[in-house]
Amino acid sequence: MSEKKEKVMVGIDLGGTGIKIGIVDLSYEMIAQTTIPTRAERPFEQVIEDMGKAVLALLEEHGYETADCLGAGVGSPGTVDSKSGVVLYSNNIRWDNVPLAKELAQYLPVPIYVNNDANCATLGETVKGAAKGCQNAIFLTLGTGVGGGVVINGTIFEGGHPGGAELGHIRIASEGRKCTCGREDCLEAYASASALIGDAKKMAEKFPDSKLWELCGHDLEQMNAKMPFDAAQAGDICGQALVEHYIQFLADGITDLANIFRPDMIVLGGGVCAQGERLTNPLNEYLRENCFGADVSYVPKVVTAKNGNDAGIIGAASLVGTAQGTQK
Amino acid sequence: MSEKKEKVMVGIDLGGTGIKIGIVDLSYEMIAQTTIPTRAERPFEQVIEDMGKAVLALLEEHGYETADCLGAGVGSPGTVDSKSGVVLYSNNIRWDNVPLAKELAQYLPVPIYVNNDANCATLGETVKGAAKGCQNAIFLTLGTGVGGGVVINGTIFEGGHPGGAELGHIRIASEGRKCTCGREDCLEAYASASALIGDAKKMAEKFPDSKLWELCGHDLEQMNAKMPFDAAQAGDICGQALVEHYIQFLADGITDLANIFRPDMIVLGGGVCAQGERLTNPLNEYLRENCFGADVSYVPKVVTAKNGNDAGIIGAASLVGTAQGTQK
Repeated sequence: MSEKKEKVMVGIDLGGTGIKIGIVDLSYEMIAQTTIPTRAERPFEQVIEDMGKAVLALLEEHGYETADCLGAGVGSPGTVDSKSGVVLYSNNIRWDNVPLAKELAQYLPVPIYVNNDANCATLGETVKGAAKGCQNAIFLTLGTGVGGGVVINGTIFEGGHPGGAELGHIRIASEGRKCTCGREDCLEAYASASALIGDAKKMAEKFPDSKLWELCGHDLEQMNAKMPFDAAQAGDICGQALVEHYIQFLADGITDLANIFRPDMIVLGGGVCAQGERLTNPLNEYLRENCFGADVSYVPKVVTAKNGNDAGIIGAASLVGTAQGTQK
Repeated sequence: MSEKKEKVMVGIDLGGTGIKIGIVDLSYEMIAQTTIPTRAERPFEQVIEDMGKAVLALLEEHGYETADCLGAGVGSPGTVDSKSGVVLYSNNIRWDNVPLAKELAQYLPVPIYVNNDANCATLGETVKGAAKGCQNAIFLTLGTGVGGGVVINGTIFEGGHPGGAELGHIRIASEGRKCTCGREDCLEAYASASALIGDAKKMAEKFPDSKLWELCGHDLEQMNAKMPFDAAQAGDICGQALVEHYIQFLADGITDLANIFRPDMIVLGGGVCAQGERLTNPLNEYLRENCFGADVSYVPKVVTAKNGNDAGIIGAASLVGTAQGTQK
């Protein structure tokens, strides 16, 4: 008889180029992980077969039987029907109505949970991360776009119909700035990393004496979301104006979400978060002053995400843990 | 032995001047109702004693014993802790930390549920009203301010902390218009009936040849939220500009909420709703064109509330019905 092993959970982060697979313990500590190529151009059956077999191989390699595994969570890009485990639509991996949970169960005889990847990341930060222990949290990713998720009473809020909780697509201004969604003046059009980079390019082009122009090596194509912050830090007025403008709009979006959800915490993810307190301090200050009823009600704290590169795996595994109430 | 009577529920609508009390059947049809004065200047114990005794009297008058009553719901203004049944704070009736459920139970030996009145109205529209049968709905009241509530999975969403779901306090513009909450450019500052009336006064003053100025009897103090719509209907360019501006901002706020919650329906309440389809048709058109992913995802419908004068009682009674799963 084999030694009695501690139970584990599997997290699967399905991406456009790679599938990250991890085994975690009940405290979401990483035991082992691997990555296999997605090769999403293949029929979905083959992608999922590879996924299932890679999980089994990883479990076996580390001495676990499927009986030791409480379940597997999958974070998928796109729109997911979490009840049926079907990926309704994903532009990223070009899937359309793929019965992911059902297919995967053929190879992996454990309970399988599927959800949108941003939702998983949100839940992950509440089980191990910046919002650990919080029953109510909002996660905003500041990347190419502004995405995110909402956790209410310890579970993912998915909206009344698939496609809900599009936190980046709330209107926060009336300046006529076009958003990728077709509407004008969405939060995403001001607070995404892309928006900041676009603004920084315009600014650097206009002010060739600026530190900003120097930082990008006099090549607008080299501009990134860190440079405005670095320029601001160095006293550059262009950088300071950009950062102030960026934070103002982000603060307004965050205040809207705080007024609607009144969560314990608002967690920020994405590259811009490397700025840490340079970003969160002014946001928290704005929230304390502008959140509705700030003098009598709870004001949520703004923090940066903590799960980093493991966010996808931990988030996916947290689907298992929260569904089964396994947290140690 | 008395004839076996059908079970009933009690709804109590606690207002600043009056307390409306109603007995409804399991389909939320009104069986009997009464109103007593609040006289909120008294100690809360006396107000609640009157409330409890009036409920008992109404039940008795209509041949019901407390055993026939499944429970009583109370909709209170202000911030309510629904778990403990305590009114944390109400400016309207000047209550501060009042243990409403506990006090009322002394007189009324039935299960007692307490929630905020706007939350009750929202839930009420989902059990009997414009969103009947919907598991997910948003209610927006367009009155002095913009308030409302959110129903998710058939129950009231209360936010992570008391004071959540302030749907009127999301920023939708950057015109610098001051909101009552201290922030600028909240939905309430554009879409409340008060905002519309304020805009109409300015417009009428500026254009003394307008139909609008005629409709208010050349007295700005007589202006109400119906007049801009009536002027627009009569072809008045001032009225048309006001209505278009008002609907534009309201449509943007509604689209934000649709993108976040993706509910089945968005129900509008308050005096402005008397405009019916003059209001909802352009809102639905905007939503169909601007809601995120409108071509592939569900687009919520905008409708006007139906419970009218009974909204407070039905909403309060729906706390009982939804908690006990009694709907016929």
